[in-house]
Amino acid sequence: MDAAVAQKPKLCRFFFPLEKQLMLFPILILLINQASKMNAEDGVMEELASEKEAEESHRQDSVNLLTFILLLTLTILTIWLFKHRRVRFLHETGLAMIYGLLVGVILRYGIPATSYHKKTPPSCSLEEGPVSTLLLNVSGKFFEYTLKGEINSREIHNVEQNDMLRKVTFDPEVFFNILLPPIIFHAGYSLKKRHFFRNLGSIITYAFLGTAISCFVIGNLMYGVVKLMQFIGQLTNKFYYTDCLFFGAIVSATDPVTVLAIFNELHADVDLYALLFGESVMNDAVAIVLSSSIVAYQPAGASTHTFDATAFFKSVGVFLGIFSGSFAMGAITGVVTALVTKFTKLHCFPLLETALFFLMSWSTFLLAEACGFTGVVAVLFCGITQAHYTYNNLSEESTKRTKQLFEVLHFLAENFIFSYMGLALFTFQNHVFSPIFIAGAFLAIFIGRASNIYPLSFLLNLGRRHKIRGNLQHMMMFAGLRGAMAFALAIRDTATYARQMTFTTTLLIVFFTVWVFGGGTTPMLSWLHIRVGVDPDQDLQQCGDNFLLFQGDGTMPEVSKTKQESAWLFRLWYTFDHNYLKPMLTHSGPPLTTTLPSCCGPLARCFTSPQAYENHEQLRDDDSDLILNDGDLALTYDDTAITAKGASSGGADAGGWGVNGKRSSSTSEEALEREMDQEFLSRSTRLVFPIEDHA
Amino acid sequence: MDAAVAQKPKLCRFFFPLEKQLMLFPILILLINQASKMNAEDGVMEELASEKEAEESHRQDSVNLLTFILLLTLTILTIWLFKHRRVRFLHETGLAMIYGLLVGVILRYGIPATSYHKKTPPSCSLEEGPVSTLLLNVSGKFFEYTLKGEINSREIHNVEQNDMLRKVTFDPEVFFNILLPPIIFHAGYSLKKRHFFRNLGSIITYAFLGTAISCFVIGNLMYGVVKLMQFIGQLTNKFYYTDCLFFGAIVSATDPVTVLAIFNELHADVDLYALLFGESVMNDAVAIVLSSSIVAYQPAGASTHTFDATAFFKSVGVFLGIFSGSFAMGAITGVVTALVTKFTKLHCFPLLETALFFLMSWSTFLLAEACGFTGVVAVLFCGITQAHYTYNNLSEESTKRTKQLFEVLHFLAENFIFSYMGLALFTFQNHVFSPIFIAGAFLAIFIGRASNIYPLSFLLNLGRRHKIRGNLQHMMMFAGLRGAMAFALAIRDTATYARQMTFTTTLLIVFFTVWVFGGGTTPMLSWLHIRVGVDPDQDLQQCGDNFLLFQGDGTMPEVSKTKQESAWLFRLWYTFDHNYLKPMLTHSGPPLTTTLPSCCGPLARCFTSPQAYENHEQLRDDDSDLILNDGDLALTYDDTAITAKGASSGGADAGGWGVNGKRSSSTSEEALEREMDQEFLSRSTRLVFPIEDHA
Repeated sequence: MDAAVAQKPKLCRFFFPLEKQLMLFPILILLINQASKMNAEDGVMEELASEKEAEESHRQDSVNLLTFILLLTLTILTIWLFKHRRVRFLHETGLAMIYGLLVGVILRYGIPATSYHKKTPPSCSLEEGPVSTLLLNVSGKFFEYTLKGEINSREIHNVEQNDMLRKVTFDPEVFFNILLPPIIFHAGYSLKKRHFFRNLGSIITYAFLGTAISCFVIGNLMYGVVKLMQFIGQLTNKFYYTDCLFFGAIVSATDPVTVLAIFNELHADVDLYALLFGESVMNDAVAIVLSSSIVAYQPAGASTHTFDATAFFKSVGVFLGIFSGSFAMGAITGVVTALVTKFTKLHCFPLLETALFFLMSWSTFLLAEACGFTGVVAVLFCGITQAHYTYNNLSEESTKRTKQLFEVLHFLAENFIFSYMGLALFTFQNHVFSPIFIAGAFLAIFIGRASNIYPLSFLLNLGRRHKIRGNLQHMMMFAGLRGAMAFALAIRDTATYARQMTFTTTLLIVFFTVWVFGGGTTPMLSWLHIRVGVDPDQDLQQCGDNFLLFQGDGTMPEVSKTKQESAWLFRLWYTFDHNYLKPMLTHSGPPLTTTLPSCCGPLARCFTSPQAYENHEQLRDDDSDLILNDGDLALTYDDTAITAKGASSGGADAGGWGVNGKRSSSTSEEALEREMDQEFLSRSTRLVFPIEDHA
Repeated sequence: MDAAVAQKPKLCRFFFPLEKQLMLFPILILLINQASKMNAEDGVMEELASEKEAEESHRQDSVNLLTFILLLTLTILTIWLFKHRRVRFLHETGLAMIYGLLVGVILRYGIPATSYHKKTPPSCSLEEGPVSTLLLNVSGKFFEYTLKGEINSREIHNVEQNDMLRKVTFDPEVFFNILLPPIIFHAGYSLKKRHFFRNLGSIITYAFLGTAISCFVIGNLMYGVVKLMQFIGQLTNKFYYTDCLFFGAIVSATDPVTVLAIFNELHADVDLYALLFGESVMNDAVAIVLSSSIVAYQPAGASTHTFDATAFFKSVGVFLGIFSGSFAMGAITGVVTALVTKFTKLHCFPLLETALFFLMSWSTFLLAEACGFTGVVAVLFCGITQAHYTYNNLSEESTKRTKQLFEVLHFLAENFIFSYMGLALFTFQNHVFSPIFIAGAFLAIFIGRASNIYPLSFLLNLGRRHKIRGNLQHMMMFAGLRGAMAFALAIRDTATYARQMTFTTTLLIVFFTVWVFGGGTTPMLSWLHIRVGVDPDQDLQQCGDNFLLFQGDGTMPEVSKTKQESAWLFRLWYTFDHNYLKPMLTHSGPPLTTTLPSCCGPLARCFTSPQAYENHEQLRDDDSDLILNDGDLALTYDDTAITAKGASSGGADAGGWGVNGKRSSSTSEEALEREMDQEFLSRSTRLVFPIEDHA
């Protein structure tokens, strides 16, 4: 009997030694590819019917997608193993890249590099410029062709060679239009609001000023490297100053995934988490807009490619235009969604609600793209708006559903991008490896990151109560990984020699930072003595105590006055949001009838939901002692309270209407009440923020 | 105060008269389209840079997708209104079509039909056959073009005219490769197993035999109509017999959505529900394979297009090959997923589990396509397998997540297809409206449906205990709506005149059946005296009583003997599934150590999960009285019980191992126990089935 017990696990290991069987997957992928290759070669005759070729192409597409899906499946299973055994030296994204690399090597060297066409495609001449549609007349039959793009003269003989490698190379726009939006939306939607807003000033400083500094430092250093290479004869092709700046812009976009996954798991310092996450989310947006402004700058200075004041200011204008336009698009769609979910009873049908939420969020992207703004940036701000307003209006089930839906989409898209990166190192056909450029780039990103973090932290610490200490600064320096966004920006344009070199170097930077910095996060945390295992709510408790007792990091109470002055913009926004936007767009906050001047009475009554009145009654009793702590905010709130008293008859009316317009199901009402409680909790917390600590 | 109460709703109606504001959406869509049109026209110079044109094309794509998203949003809001007010005469899919039609009319007639190219694209001649890639040499610069397809000579001058209409016309393969798979998978995954398996025989008969009958009846009738048209000179183009059969195949695929949504809401007769749902799901698969077999048959008889015995049998062979291949692909992927989820502890990480489930289900589609089978059919059987096995292994959270994920995907895809159908009526450029053909088709589908339902129901009733009564037959006749599948099959190939006529007619049939039959479901149910408001479990209770008391529809106990003989195949499968497959692939069922012969001991011990032993102990006590009711099944089970006693020492071992291999979190254990209970419940139910009633 004991023998049987001992034997079973061993046998099971024999049948399911998952750890080893996982390694068979790449071979399986090879086999599938090979088989489809065989099929292709068998079925090919000199004069292939176009229909058969289309079918073959469809089958090849299926095989390629299948390759990626098997890769992802493999990654998921290995992630599980790693999580199961608490391996932390390699993150899932790093893993996805390794598997991608493996498959890339197999595709590149494991399969004979011949093509079943074995010849350069026929060409035909036209005098006019390129058109989007071309007709081909083959003995009376017409075929329609669409423009794919200009190709380099040295690539012409390459065009049909090794179809497979060409086929697994996706259209770069797929990354921008399909894979990035869910990743970025999820980042915005899952921002831990409390800590994000508490550190908003610092985050914006790092993301905007810091990214711009990093971009220019890297750009100028690389221009030096390029000049050096031209001097010693290592570079004969053109490499303009704008190309260097472009490189600077794309490698300034830091990626949060690896480090933050570990932070989340270890419950590391929440402020550090908020700073890193906020920065990396916002600087993605900055990097996109910065790089497209640099491209827009290029044509103006096309003749010289040197510095030109007019073009520079035009480019800054483009930057501001695109950024604010995208921001507006995202915010507007978010607000519209909030209004729709507030004023319809969609929450009785979670499926409809989720579908609507998904569609509205997606439409942001399309709307921005259609208007010539940047969809990805719009999607980010839409995500933040949705989390801030719409989320409060959704039914409890929909909040779960939407979170889970975007979580899955984000997970799949991210792992797909990372495994594609691994693949691209071997399957991309136009790599330009230049050791000097690569060495220079590694040095430059280090200096660029340092000149972002340290000077700005110094400046921010002048204004922050809650200082960013040295060890946190080092950690932020260390955590500057590059990921999906840098890759997507780099692969978008690989037409010129300079851009190809940029792409290759970016890819190597991503590999290095994800593996080395990502893998080194846990040791680095302990080496820098950064506390882990912090419960965010407990941390908040501490902050609250801090505030009440004024015994924090040795800062004196009188500092708070300068703080209040520097933060007036934030406080203004906070008051506006709390008094007008929240009540208008959600069921929470004080009733608009109490915050708006009496002339707007009908409008206010219309926008205020019955729940707000009930909520308000409750608040007035509970909030009073909180308000007493803060003179400045209490003033605003007292104002509110006075108005509330003046309009108390209106409030009574509202109560009456609330009975008529009451929700039908008691369960959703309970859910709402719970929401209310939460809202109240987080609001009372937020009431503390403006005078607590931030830049 | 009373005035204020009365006034508020009115004011709110002023600001949010949703019912009316919804109608503004189409105008908004028009405006957006118009604006983008304007932009396009402003920015156009005679010699457009190719980059700018690509950008413009991207923008146009965004606008088109945005149009569809706004359409879907609009549909969702209206669905909510309809559900809110309990409107049942128009289903959401019918609604989506109406909105699609509206936007189609606007796009077609509201926007001047000019193009910004205003000329036929340049053509160039080659002597070789069409190639997939073509190079264009414009004064030394090379541009790459890819083959889009052959175009009709009469369309050449049409190519660039009215880009907008061309642009909103999707690639038909999008329907087949992106929109149908989630719909079909969801259908398979959400099959109400209990009632489905109880009526499996009847469902298969209707789906296979019935669809084939319907296809041939419609095909032959339409051939008569075509001959008539040729005789009276209404048809001069070619229209072969195979085209008629193809038409018969595609309009034989019935669609469940509209009717079943209403059935679900009204809780109509569960057997009717199972019959209709099962039939419509399975006959989608049959119609796909049937139509592709007919296309495969065509080349063989290409010269004559008449009946040819060899080609016919070849075509039957193709049918069987594709069907069984696709079935195998789906089943295999399902089984692999079940094994992976059983033998890993992935259920601790619901996100990974959901992602894996999604990827494996998608890979079925790609695998089948890559091997030359039909992806959609494979996906259906994969869905059924996943629901039957994998679903039991998933964590409680993942079961919810996967259901909700596919529910949303299904909802979006379905409404997209239906609104696209509405749009296509006006934006598709090559409609061929032939009144005689259309009238003939309406008559033919009626006769085809009748010759499917009535004769087969008669035959089935000879073998069924639980008769399909006349009113149910009439309802099945009435519920033969055509939907997404018929449309997707029809739009797949619109190259010839015959296929264009087929497409137009199919579209009209879909419109008519969805609006008229879909809208008439509720009145029809009451007119046919079909009971509604049935609780499926209560119904089951009744069935159980039926069985125990033998007092059902007047059927005599002695009938059960013939029943048992006719159902031997089903019982064989059931026993095999219950004794071997379920224990091997899931945590439920009797331990394999008790069902497999002792020579397979090690294998059995390895595949049996510790939960199965515990479960089994519990079962032996509780099940006994149930088993006594059924001599035949008890025999199988007694067999099991005896083996179980023989191997009881092994069971004790397993208990010991179970302690070691115990799940870590107590919550997941609780979830599992609940699952177990459910499984036990449904199993004891199923134990009753084989002798209860089915064909």
